[in-house]
Amino acid sequence: MEKVCVLGAGSTKYGKLEDSITDITIQASVGAIESAGIDPKEIQAGYISNVFGVADKQVHLGPVVMSNLGIPEKPSLSIESACGSGSVSFREAFANVAAGFYDAVLVAGTEKVTHTGTEWTTTYFSYCSDFFYEGGAGASFPGLFASMARAYLTEFKATEEDLARVAVKNHENGLLNPKAHLRKKITVDDVLNSAVVASPLKLYDCCPFSDGASAVILCSEKFAKEHSKNYVNVIGSGRGGSPATLQGRDHMTTIPSTKLAAQAAYKMAGITAKDIDFAEVHDCFTIAEIVDTEDLGFFEKGQGVQAVREGRTSMKGDIAINPSGGLKSKGHPIGATGVGQVVEVFEQLTGKAGERTVQDAKIGLTHNFGATGASCAVHIFQSV
Amino acid sequence: MEKVCVLGAGSTKYGKLEDSITDITIQASVGAIESAGIDPKEIQAGYISNVFGVADKQVHLGPVVMSNLGIPEKPSLSIESACGSGSVSFREAFANVAAGFYDAVLVAGTEKVTHTGTEWTTTYFSYCSDFFYEGGAGASFPGLFASMARAYLTEFKATEEDLARVAVKNHENGLLNPKAHLRKKITVDDVLNSAVVASPLKLYDCCPFSDGASAVILCSEKFAKEHSKNYVNVIGSGRGGSPATLQGRDHMTTIPSTKLAAQAAYKMAGITAKDIDFAEVHDCFTIAEIVDTEDLGFFEKGQGVQAVREGRTSMKGDIAINPSGGLKSKGHPIGATGVGQVVEVFEQLTGKAGERTVQDAKIGLTHNFGATGASCAVHIFQSV
Repeated sequence: MEKVCVLGAGSTKYGKLEDSITDITIQASVGAIESAGIDPKEIQAGYISNVFGVADKQVHLGPVVMSNLGIPEKPSLSIESACGSGSVSFREAFANVAAGFYDAVLVAGTEKVTHTGTEWTTTYFSYCSDFFYEGGAGASFPGLFASMARAYLTEFKATEEDLARVAVKNHENGLLNPKAHLRKKITVDDVLNSAVVASPLKLYDCCPFSDGASAVILCSEKFAKEHSKNYVNVIGSGRGGSPATLQGRDHMTTIPSTKLAAQAAYKMAGITAKDIDFAEVHDCFTIAEIVDTEDLGFFEKGQGVQAVREGRTSMKGDIAINPSGGLKSKGHPIGATGVGQVVEVFEQLTGKAGERTVQDAKIGLTHNFGATGASCAVHIFQSV
Repeated sequence: MEKVCVLGAGSTKYGKLEDSITDITIQASVGAIESAGIDPKEIQAGYISNVFGVADKQVHLGPVVMSNLGIPEKPSLSIESACGSGSVSFREAFANVAAGFYDAVLVAGTEKVTHTGTEWTTTYFSYCSDFFYEGGAGASFPGLFASMARAYLTEFKATEEDLARVAVKNHENGLLNPKAHLRKKITVDDVLNSAVVASPLKLYDCCPFSDGASAVILCSEKFAKEHSKNYVNVIGSGRGGSPATLQGRDHMTTIPSTKLAAQAAYKMAGITAKDIDFAEVHDCFTIAEIVDTEDLGFFEKGQGVQAVREGRTSMKGDIAINPSGGLKSKGHPIGATGVGQVVEVFEQLTGKAGERTVQDAKIGLTHNFGATGASCAVHIFQSV
């Protein structure tokens, strides 16, 4: 199996964007190509992740992107796995490069939804649940994650203040990220006093709907060495699944797919959770980050909340969680998020993260799931 | 690289179906699992192809399917490449099994659109073009293929009767396929007298909008040998791209991605077009089949039309084209079509094609593209 590397990374700002889905995808892709210092013609395939292309009247986005990059003859495809699309697309690209099918590929994630309004977006996002049992029965994602939050607070005697601390931390990180959607310092009281969305979750417990695109160049180690010294090794890749519905699971306070994906990624990398210096995890709601950090093995079950209280997940803690600001502050353009996490890791491990650099970091992890964790991918990266 | 085999295949009827997209996908998947004679728990991943899940309010279909099959822990994803989604999904599954990431995977293609009506379907399908330049400018797919047809008729002095003969042949084949959408014998006059959709294409030159799902089990040769004697070897796999817009191409009477994908597949298989006994090709419109058979190397440029006149592509001709009835008669549930072609090849090469068996066939080819051929995949199969 070929060793696989990230050679370059690019991203648009996340937020409310005016340009078309095609344009933002190309902007991120050109950024990644320039960052990698390669000629577009060296790219052999394009992996695009996107969920609601219909929102901007453009599905089959791959050939449009490849044509605009001047490489229409190269094959491309779109991958969808709800909010986990970006990491799943990255995984497919990884598998193809690892197997030797391609030397260098473009992985671009993208989403454009804010122009459609909250009602359209909420409705369409609910199609990512098992719609017959969840979305169609009125269980929106805020509602489903609120159920998880209520179960967690009850089981582990945690409080709404604890959840709020996750939001405060991630907004603090996001303030240092020029591409973040919500760059705004907030307090625990701001979170507690914001409108109730689905109790116990308030508005500031929820990530925003965002537009945005992120892209990376993934390549063989041989290709990377020929082009740059500024690349990052992908040392672990894992995937897993969970019962599609929350009601189909044994427990409400853990996500099985995260555990399966993490186990596979740690095994491939030959390391354990203790070796991770920082992680970008899927914090679509504050409760999710706490559950993630336990399922990923950073903290014992029920201890994730204590870790937040003690600041152990902050930039200067034991393990920085979501230095980018996470989905909560950086934003969540659903098809782009998983690729955007890799952009952050690339920048962290190649000295490009500026003010938000995690000191002495050598190994970073990305964790991205779809829906309430029905699909998940985890990747582990190491600096050269 | 591991040798890859098709171990089982299943399909719903194509046409106007009442069941949900989830249900039809499971029906096809269960059919493939039973045909393969395996336990669902032996499946290690699910590759789902689907374009307009929004039509039936269910995207992120993978976990829903895996959960219903009793294997929620297994990873899954959805792949979209417009009308070529099925073959592109098959290609990704092939790459993962060939690389040794999985021993056995489910590949299921599915689409459910007829309940939305012609206006919705036509509008949404146009999002598969480069919408800024084509769909949004009024160039629908019938219009785009009509432009190709007009160019072909002019360049090669072919006639509308020639196009009609493709429809007549494919309807004849489809009559023998119990799962075909349009099982109806037609004449050249029927085609010529049907309503003009986009001159020179008439209604009977166009494939129908269909619902349907098809699935196959793809596995390593070792896994296949342990489970059955009734499997088929995948000996070639190729992909290619074309400029996304028709106006961006040098010629209107050839599809570059077909040529690239075919070259790659023939090279991997170590054979030439002459070795192919029969082929399932992308005949979304009658003109497409003629262009396909030339681009695939079965006939010289401009000679495809003469081959149809002489019956060389009929069931008893030199090379049977679309023994299943093709998109024209069997139907075109866009996410399923590419997988459905593999189902047909599996049945042909394992003695399950009944009345429509291509005599003495050992090697079959599938060809499936997206939009006007912006993305394409070609696969070659050999009997054991």
